[in-house]
Amino acid sequence: MLKLYGFSVSNYYNMVKLALLEKGLPFEEVLFYAGQAPDVLAVSPRGKVPVLEVKQGFINETSVILEYIEQTQEGPSLLPADPFERAQVLALCREIELYIELPARACFGEAFFGVAVAEAIKEKSKAELLLGIASLGRHGKFAPFVAGESFTIADLYFMYSLNLACGVGEKLFGLDLLAQLPAAKALLDRLNAMPNAQKVEADRQAAMPAFLAMVAAKK
Amino acid sequence: MLKLYGFSVSNYYNMVKLALLEKGLPFEEVLFYAGQAPDVLAVSPRGKVPVLEVKQGFINETSVILEYIEQTQEGPSLLPADPFERAQVLALCREIELYIELPARACFGEAFFGVAVAEAIKEKSKAELLLGIASLGRHGKFAPFVAGESFTIADLYFMYSLNLACGVGEKLFGLDLLAQLPAAKALLDRLNAMPNAQKVEADRQAAMPAFLAMVAAKK
Repeated sequence: MLKLYGFSVSNYYNMVKLALLEKGLPFEEVLFYAGQAPDVLAVSPRGKVPVLEVKQGFINETSVILEYIEQTQEGPSLLPADPFERAQVLALCREIELYIELPARACFGEAFFGVAVAEAIKEKSKAELLLGIASLGRHGKFAPFVAGESFTIADLYFMYSLNLACGVGEKLFGLDLLAQLPAAKALLDRLNAMPNAQKVEADRQAAMPAFLAMVAAKK
Repeated sequence: MLKLYGFSVSNYYNMVKLALLEKGLPFEEVLFYAGQAPDVLAVSPRGKVPVLEVKQGFINETSVILEYIEQTQEGPSLLPADPFERAQVLALCREIELYIELPARACFGEAFFGVAVAEAIKEKSKAELLLGIASLGRHGKFAPFVAGESFTIADLYFMYSLNLACGVGEKLFGLDLLAQLPAAKALLDRLNAMPNAQKVEADRQAAMPAFLAMVAAKK
């Protein structure tokens, strides 16, 4: 059986978890925190989550895990078969990851965990976030899903990145990042209401106290 | 015919260009600078290069372009057929992009173009670069290529990211990033000596004066 390593507070972990749930695949969750300890690095070269364990070994990096699952597992497809359409979905995933999730992530400490972030980093993140959201507005279809008619892995990136990016926008910059994109906002609400997404969210909330205690212990 | 949009100084442009050359595919180069002008954004949603134009339209994001080429075009394969081995190559690509190229990129202005970068950003980049290189040392095979016996797209990421990251390490931090990885250093030299890589490098050098003039005009 597939084994998913990580913790339920991680948004990347939850992208893969929702993919597995939507595809109806059996999998085992293995509690595994990111870090630089030798036992962590033996599983994940950069000490990040999630990691997928399969018969042959470990697969790391969310984007790679999601494609591997598409390529090898049963269940509803989360990527188009046509190579050009597939490329549009994957480009949206990369745009959301690189130009929205990552600049937001640089500010997570201050937005969510009471750890101050340097002004220079916040300024850079704010400028990048605004460009990233504008890019999403140009490339995203929201008709009704991010990449068009079907639920794809771009929706996984969208929901689990925008939830947090919007929190950063509001808390640190007083900005409603999706103010100009009502169709995106409506989609986010619909995605969050999916039954499997609600299960993932319940697990996230249940895991939060232990995660916050761990963060506090490291301060 | 495939059309590759971008400019020869861009390391991401050169990853795709070398892939096309190594696969022996005919393609046309279209000079196209990154930016936020409407005509640029009509081709590339985030205003980045490279972009590949195919019959159906434009494909952006280097990682997506490289996979699209593998999926649709002839020539020597730059990705393994086995899904697990393919995932290892793609994970190495992502690790090099996210944990080495991107933190180095945040410092390109100061390292290469005389534009000061804030101390907080340099500190963050330095810490991330050291972790990224350590990760590469754990996951990379260098036997003799990054991911094992064959030249793959992980070698494209490696050569066109490490050349620049090593420049940042040396110029801003006085560090030889590959000091602990002699096999990686030797591979970088061999990759840079490939005939097609030398052609890409000659084009890069020829394009540099026009690029620097453009950067200077924007200052």
